[in-house]
Amino acid sequence: MSTREGFFVVLEGPDKSGKSTQAKRLVDDLRQDGLKVIHTREPGGTSFAESIRKILLDTKHKVDPMAELLLYEAARAQHTRDVLVPSLEDGAVVVCERYTLATLVYQGRARGLEEAMIRQLNRLATGGLRPDLTLVLDIPQGEFGRRDKRRKHDRMERETVLFRSKVREGYRALAKREPRTVLLDASEPVDRVEKEILQLVHAALREKAR
Amino acid sequence: MSTREGFFVVLEGPDKSGKSTQAKRLVDDLRQDGLKVIHTREPGGTSFAESIRKILLDTKHKVDPMAELLLYEAARAQHTRDVLVPSLEDGAVVVCERYTLATLVYQGRARGLEEAMIRQLNRLATGGLRPDLTLVLDIPQGEFGRRDKRRKHDRMERETVLFRSKVREGYRALAKREPRTVLLDASEPVDRVEKEILQLVHAALREKAR
Repeated sequence: MSTREGFFVVLEGPDKSGKSTQAKRLVDDLRQDGLKVIHTREPGGTSFAESIRKILLDTKHKVDPMAELLLYEAARAQHTRDVLVPSLEDGAVVVCERYTLATLVYQGRARGLEEAMIRQLNRLATGGLRPDLTLVLDIPQGEFGRRDKRRKHDRMERETVLFRSKVREGYRALAKREPRTVLLDASEPVDRVEKEILQLVHAALREKAR
Repeated sequence: MSTREGFFVVLEGPDKSGKSTQAKRLVDDLRQDGLKVIHTREPGGTSFAESIRKILLDTKHKVDPMAELLLYEAARAQHTRDVLVPSLEDGAVVVCERYTLATLVYQGRARGLEEAMIRQLNRLATGGLRPDLTLVLDIPQGEFGRRDKRRKHDRMERETVLFRSKVREGYRALAKREPRTVLLDASEPVDRVEKEILQLVHAALREKAR
């Protein structure tokens, strides 16, 4: 299923890659074009999904990878039904931070769950709704350290370095294979990345309008 | 996958069918036999799953059926990994209120989601762990009214009557088809139901020990 009425653009990428900053700028730019724009994010976007987000981010829970995957998909199902589909049917441009690709990368490439199973759960949760355009913000490993404000890296942080490396490589590899997906160098100046994103979105909007 | 070491018995049935009462009695009876017994329930049994339970029971959320299904399965995945599997590997008898059959009945028969898909999610969440014995407590529709303490039935309650009817018929139909599953008349006196359950569990324990 594609989005017949509106336009669905997803910003993806590791932590600190600038998704939220770029999403906000893109939303402002598109509104200045006179478009109706909805800005949302995963997991979240509804009170139900925000409750799930809290569970996912609560460090007191030691979460089984399969349980984690199913929780993300539950939040996605609700968010898709309550926010994405109605906004797109209403003809809006939806700018969403993270979507199905994030699950393939984090739960698949980084946590090691089977890709085919994740794709199937993605389909179940979204009812087959796919983005018109997915933009993956790529930053070199070292860039995370420069942007990260924490001082010391303990044993858990070092494990996180390996995890982040899997995430980055996962995004890079999948960006090449997934349809309507573009990898961007997000280590460039923010303004330049913003301009590049806007050009890609404008091109895709024109393409869809034809 | 079956439970090689311990013994896994599930009590199923609609609300007010007496699951908790009978589970407690069964646990006491089996402990008096000198067995190591774990009493647990779905959704719940771990702090993570209890958090999910809260979301599921919070009436302020209007939950999409697919999101609801995925949440139940997330709680199940965590509960299976943290409680069921370790207890069974430890050789315990696990008495669990509700498990995979409840999902086939509530989300399948009552909410109308596809049975094959639910079975597949059940398999993913449980890693294929199946009960040694499932006991379905059946009560006539009218019995719910007698056991229920609420006074008035508004429009939503009336919808609930149809829902409860689908649940009961779902349990009755599936109890006939599912392996190692027995339907019990739970409108009989509590002591008699308790005795019947204990006999069935003893028989299944002997069968498994052979």
